[in-house]
Amino acid sequence: MSFSPNLRIAQSASLKPLGDIADGMGIGPHLLEAYGENVAKIKLKAIAELADRPRAKYVVVSAVTPTPLGEGKTTTTVGLGQAMAHIGRRATVAIRQPSMGPTFGIKGGAAGGGYSQVVPMEILNLHLTGDFHAVTAAHNLLSAILDNHLYQGNDSGLDQHNITWRRVLDVNDRALRNVIVGLGSRMDGIPRQTAFDITAASEVMAIFALASSLQEMRTRFGRIVVGYTEDGKPVTAEDIGGAGAMTVIMRDALKPNLMQTLENTPVLVHAGPFGNIAHGNSSVVADLIGIHGGDFLVTEAGFGADMGAERFFNIKCRASGLTPDAAVVVATVRALKAHSGHHNVVAGRPLPEGLLTENPDEVHIGGANLRKQIENIRLHGVSPVVAINAFPDDHPSEHAAIAEIAAEMGARVAVCTHFAEGGRGARELAEAVAEAAEESSDFRFLYPDSASLKEKIETIATKVYGADGVDYHPAAARQLATYEHNGFGDLPVCIAKTHLSLSSDASLKGAPTGWRLPVREVRASVGAGFIYPICGDMRTMPGLGAHPNAHQIDIDAEGNIVNLF
Amino acid sequence: MSFSPNLRIAQSASLKPLGDIADGMGIGPHLLEAYGENVAKIKLKAIAELADRPRAKYVVVSAVTPTPLGEGKTTTTVGLGQAMAHIGRRATVAIRQPSMGPTFGIKGGAAGGGYSQVVPMEILNLHLTGDFHAVTAAHNLLSAILDNHLYQGNDSGLDQHNITWRRVLDVNDRALRNVIVGLGSRMDGIPRQTAFDITAASEVMAIFALASSLQEMRTRFGRIVVGYTEDGKPVTAEDIGGAGAMTVIMRDALKPNLMQTLENTPVLVHAGPFGNIAHGNSSVVADLIGIHGGDFLVTEAGFGADMGAERFFNIKCRASGLTPDAAVVVATVRALKAHSGHHNVVAGRPLPEGLLTENPDEVHIGGANLRKQIENIRLHGVSPVVAINAFPDDHPSEHAAIAEIAAEMGARVAVCTHFAEGGRGARELAEAVAEAAEESSDFRFLYPDSASLKEKIETIATKVYGADGVDYHPAAARQLATYEHNGFGDLPVCIAKTHLSLSSDASLKGAPTGWRLPVREVRASVGAGFIYPICGDMRTMPGLGAHPNAHQIDIDAEGNIVNLF
Repeated sequence: MSFSPNLRIAQSASLKPLGDIADGMGIGPHLLEAYGENVAKIKLKAIAELADRPRAKYVVVSAVTPTPLGEGKTTTTVGLGQAMAHIGRRATVAIRQPSMGPTFGIKGGAAGGGYSQVVPMEILNLHLTGDFHAVTAAHNLLSAILDNHLYQGNDSGLDQHNITWRRVLDVNDRALRNVIVGLGSRMDGIPRQTAFDITAASEVMAIFALASSLQEMRTRFGRIVVGYTEDGKPVTAEDIGGAGAMTVIMRDALKPNLMQTLENTPVLVHAGPFGNIAHGNSSVVADLIGIHGGDFLVTEAGFGADMGAERFFNIKCRASGLTPDAAVVVATVRALKAHSGHHNVVAGRPLPEGLLTENPDEVHIGGANLRKQIENIRLHGVSPVVAINAFPDDHPSEHAAIAEIAAEMGARVAVCTHFAEGGRGARELAEAVAEAAEESSDFRFLYPDSASLKEKIETIATKVYGADGVDYHPAAARQLATYEHNGFGDLPVCIAKTHLSLSSDASLKGAPTGWRLPVREVRASVGAGFIYPICGDMRTMPGLGAHPNAHQIDIDAEGNIVNLF
Repeated sequence: MSFSPNLRIAQSASLKPLGDIADGMGIGPHLLEAYGENVAKIKLKAIAELADRPRAKYVVVSAVTPTPLGEGKTTTTVGLGQAMAHIGRRATVAIRQPSMGPTFGIKGGAAGGGYSQVVPMEILNLHLTGDFHAVTAAHNLLSAILDNHLYQGNDSGLDQHNITWRRVLDVNDRALRNVIVGLGSRMDGIPRQTAFDITAASEVMAIFALASSLQEMRTRFGRIVVGYTEDGKPVTAEDIGGAGAMTVIMRDALKPNLMQTLENTPVLVHAGPFGNIAHGNSSVVADLIGIHGGDFLVTEAGFGADMGAERFFNIKCRASGLTPDAAVVVATVRALKAHSGHHNVVAGRPLPEGLLTENPDEVHIGGANLRKQIENIRLHGVSPVVAINAFPDDHPSEHAAIAEIAAEMGARVAVCTHFAEGGRGARELAEAVAEAAEESSDFRFLYPDSASLKEKIETIATKVYGADGVDYHPAAARQLATYEHNGFGDLPVCIAKTHLSLSSDASLKGAPTGWRLPVREVRASVGAGFIYPICGDMRTMPGLGAHPNAHQIDIDAEGNIVNLF
């Protein structure tokens, strides 16, 4: 028995056969492959078969800069998808697959919540159809091929001190952050220091999320840079003979997974790239299918609008060729109060007392963050809609304060209670989104491909983050020059910084000004197709806490899962 | 386009819907979960639902001591299963899932061959339904919990120099054989030396293969010994809080996978424990279902009869409570000629010229191995049947020589051509097996639970391997005493030695005498429920060769897999 309300609600859901769900999207049974009873994969030929159907309005759900607790972006994405049926429109939801590692760390899944959930949540939060496992296998096969390449004579002349390809596992395991491999006898490989990242941080994950076809994924795998020769020449996965085998391992994973919400809205769950060192958006192929699946395709972009939405516009839409019609900015009273700078919200601890007392003025102060995030959407020519994700402790005056900010910025706004009420609670939001999406879209990238890498970084830093400028560590400047020299200068950039501030300093709330973005180091995901400058400490392998959820998760006497959420 | 004949035959197969395959076993659609189009999982409640159906005859397929090329045991298992339909009987086949790591190393899958194959072979040899990935995830979660346990204060008092739990990956990666983890800053864990094994060598794999229910798997996970305190007290997975979460990760994996042969015989593919440091047999739950699925359940045991069959009898049957009715010993002309000691067969090279010339006398000399393996079956009170797996280069006089040896030993014998002809080619074998299985079975374990660990080792060494006795390294003797002291003395033993000789020296062919078994070290898989003495070098993480198959495997322009086999 579990007393988690999310699980209780999820388990009382009335699921429809996935064939019916797919049928509602115009996807016939010949395009489906069942994986267990409540998930199906959609064959990639659906992209071509659906191409002549009408194009849905494309809506991205983003947020203000969140507190460490998150502001209910997935819940709002699911709630908005469900709400469309309440106003007579058909929607498809597209989200990332959650990483399994953290499931065993901190309690709390990634399937939405309350009456706005993707079900069955235990499948979503565990293996799903094994796509993450395929990423792990493909990534580590390339690692084994690389170390075998060194062992068998290193024909490419790889510099052992300049190998950038690491290994991955989908587990929170701090002991793998820094390792030495290849110890033992002469038969046991070449000793060298390296590391494991969590699978979500794998470039294979980012590639799989950005590929538009099996062949294009194959090409991207070939372009992965695994390291450099002593004279700085990049060595690729193609050079060391790994790209074909990786594609074979990832062939089935590239088919999007179909699930449903509590209200039987179709949900495409596919890929789960990190939101800091990668672009943090679900897959392009899922969207290429979903865009012909109804009236609206509602997708989510990780973290605040400065992070996930910026990459959605400039990286994902560049790869897919799809253009968004509206963007939702989820705002909560608690996040905006925290942005006043008067409170310190810490994950795993109760909210500070002072944050719960009625205080619309504080919402107005913290509202600087919302204003900037609305502006960040507008920078790309997209219509913003503010979704006030209501919590039981909120006060009407505080919702009114958010609404005033939105109005002042010329953005539509709606109070949502989809957590407590399901789609019905987001009807007003659905209406606002439908109106915004009807406006003629003027979508534009923030920068052209042809801008230099420094120009791209500086454009994002100054226009989106509100920085005065960018400071490069000498090593970072050298790396940028090398990337340009190697022909990677046309790639977009994915700036890795904290998601807890518009700035690169997590302690700066609201919309910080008078600061400069420090670029410490620059890395390249050439296969995925972006350069990522590192601004601050970016942890790519989490650890478990003193009391990880893994200690509680178990089965009961009937074999049911308990304490997963 | 691939020119592999196995793949060409497999791709021309006419597959039946799995619902029809299951129906033939008395398994209704309510017990199936589709995984893609050509694999289904069978729910565990099938065990109870089928319990009242008639019990099939239980047949284990073993072999003479093989050459490094293998002697076609899986092919014969599949061929025999197919052949049963040709004599009017219904059979189910049960085999291990192959490991994905070696698929990218040496060309050649593990789905049988020619016209005796499990299909689709590319699914079988890649992810199947992800069970191996689940093993990897469950194993490495326990590893992360263990290192977190050290990091968070080591309440159990684990001796960092006596930790036996390692990590696993399903990849051939020699660089992971000896690693140091936990480097970096104070926040990055406790530095210590450890290792990765291939996933097939995981104790989680052995447990999952031997568990008879979800709850029993949970109990076995709890009993895993991860290391010892400084005063030698075992610390378990239960002690450090990992067993419940591991069970949740492995919950779906415990359901057996249903596939089919080229002739639509049902095949249960489930679990793949190593054949040297583990027991090398497919799962107990698959057999608990398959035993009520028709007239015969034909399963395979890894390596020669001294290895896989001995563990099948003394470890797997102990766990399942099932008793075998007949045992097939696969013999080939090439293996028996090699057992004459006159030839050296090397994997990846053509057979020596001299081995291909007609020479029945050599077969008689090498036949000593066959005699001993027949005897090893008889030791357990089971009727042996010799299957002569015919190759195109064989001569009739050589088949006659094998038949004479079998007759001399009082064993039934049949020449089989199932590779070239499918089930039709193993009709005679099927008749012989059916007759043997009708004889009243006198199945017995080789030793009682109550025998000491040394008595168990010595019984196997002298009676099965033909050794004069056993020599223990002082460390091994101490370890055995410790295990007895810790209450593990009742467990069966799984002797880890080379599979290329009845002895512990791979170069000794035939049926070596006048030698003693050297036990260098003794390890314990307490959760799986066996103690494994190590005799010789046991490699638990393979490496890739100079020209691994991974370099060739790819997709073609239509997205088809090429060069997988």
